Amino acid sequence: MTAALPPLRKGYAARDDLIQRRAAAGAFETTQEIEPGVTIADATYGGVSCIVCAPVAPRATILYLHGGGFRMGHPRGWTGFGSRLAAAADARVVLVDYRLAPEHPFPAGLHDAVAAYDAVANESGGAIFVAGDSAGGGLAASVVLARARSRGLILLSPWLDLTLRAATWESRAATDKLFALATARDAAASYLQGHPSDDPLVSPLLADLAGFPPVLIFASGAESLLGDASAFAEGIALAGGTVEAHLVAGMQHVWPTLFPDLPESGAALEAMARFVRQRL
Amino acid sequence: MTAALPPLRKGYAARDDLIQRRAAAGAFETTQEIEPGVTIADATYGGVSCIVCAPVAPRATILYLHGGGFRMGHPRGWTGFGSRLAAAADARVVLVDYRLAPEHPFPAGLHDAVAAYDAVANESGGAIFVAGDSAGGGLAASVVLARARSRGLILLSPWLDLTLRAATWESRAATDKLFALATARDAAASYLQGHPSDDPLVSPLLADLAGFPPVLIFASGAESLLGDASAFAEGIALAGGTVEAHLVAGMQHVWPTLFPDLPESGAALEAMARFVRQRL
Repeated sequence: MTAALPPLRKGYAARDDLIQRRAAAGAFETTQEIEPGVTIADATYGGVSCIVCAPVAPRATILYLHGGGFRMGHPRGWTGFGSRLAAAADARVVLVDYRLAPEHPFPAGLHDAVAAYDAVANESGGAIFVAGDSAGGGLAASVVLARARSRGLILLSPWLDLTLRAATWESRAATDKLFALATARDAAASYLQGHPSDDPLVSPLLADLAGFPPVLIFASGAESLLGDASAFAEGIALAGGTVEAHLVAGMQHVWPTLFPDLPESGAALEAMARFVRQRL
Repeated sequence: MTAALPPLRKGYAARDDLIQRRAAAGAFETTQEIEPGVTIADATYGGVSCIVCAPVAPRATILYLHGGGFRMGHPRGWTGFGSRLAAAADARVVLVDYRLAPEHPFPAGLHDAVAAYDAVANESGGAIFVAGDSAGGGLAASVVLARARSRGLILLSPWLDLTLRAATWESRAATDKLFALATARDAAASYLQGHPSDDPLVSPLLADLAGFPPVLIFASGAESLLGDASAFAEGIALAGGTVEAHLVAGMQHVWPTLFPDLPESGAALEAMARFVRQRL
């Protein structure tokens, strides 16, 4: 493990439709319900802007990479979920504002995530977990690949294979309302800009998975990324690691972040909190 | 689902070495440590002898099929584990003394398991779970295939594919100290006695897995049956079901039953208890 990061590359300007979609997603950021007792504050780690969700008495730190296909999303849209996770797990949740494609293609986002990781790990003295959803789940796994340390990796509907080989991209097309193959192809092209999609730092499912910390992974049986999740769980086990996989029927992509009122979201939050607490 | 059971067949007498191994295993039955507050009692369900581990205030019933390659084992050897599970989950654990091969080849054991299931389900009014370890895990999945009902299925290092296709029979040969491919081949031959190994009632991994209740499954990354477990977890999810898979590094086969003092066994017991409680 501990792969070197390739140098930064020049990107290109976002098209109008992406700018509009970012703006529409931005409206969601104003609707966050913050868990009582959790404070939300700006911070900078390793030169990267972050938002920190801090419970009253944190016992661990979770570095969190948000989803959005590598080209959308801002920590502001995850403060509600971050505050719930912080309260449930008694952990500071550090939401990283990593650079987005296409303005900043791979590996800019990963550079930012690793820089924030190094600074947070240095400060927190070891009790650090890495987590993420969707494209952010892939980034989280890549941070672990690049850095190896950390107490555990928490992945929600992670996108772990940008070669898009999973059969569930086709077989779940009718039931996944949030992440379709065409969208994934477009997002991958924006992020990769010619970089090989089978680079393990881009598609950690294809990496040598030996040496990973314990992994907690969630995916739904109804979503396109089910195949990525189940293959990653098997790969971690085959590589000699420990993995707890929750494959839940009938949920939409990243349900614990988007639909907090579902019982399945509460169960997922509890499982995340337990996973963190068991490893302190 | 709800597969019909084939008729009973005549078996053959056990060889001396199996008789000796049964006797040696019998010594283990005298070493059971019963959890305080749990009572152990004989009972008969559907004409099948059982041992019931009853906590003070049971809220559910778990029908439990012990392991032993379909040809060894007796509920007496599982009363310690059964009592721990009963106390943790607030559930009656009914250990089924199903008939063993080679004296009673497939489907005698499954007839017994299903008969006990029907009687227990009739009595318990619905809050019933099916569980098992190793060969008993396969039987448990077959009971669900034959009966469909039940709140959930709990599998510890289950043997789910008697065609022995899993690559982990070879790749884990050096680390699995308890269940080797040669033993599995011999056990399968004793149990099948010419019956096709790819019959889904014998190898539930090969069944249509649609309609299964929620599944909780444990296996170790070091054991031969890792492949059966990870393939079954993926199969349940692909068939539209819910599964929670714990694939744990470095454990031996059926560790929660054999090595109760390990932290990993305590964690498994807690996960089983939670799985039951969440579904009441």
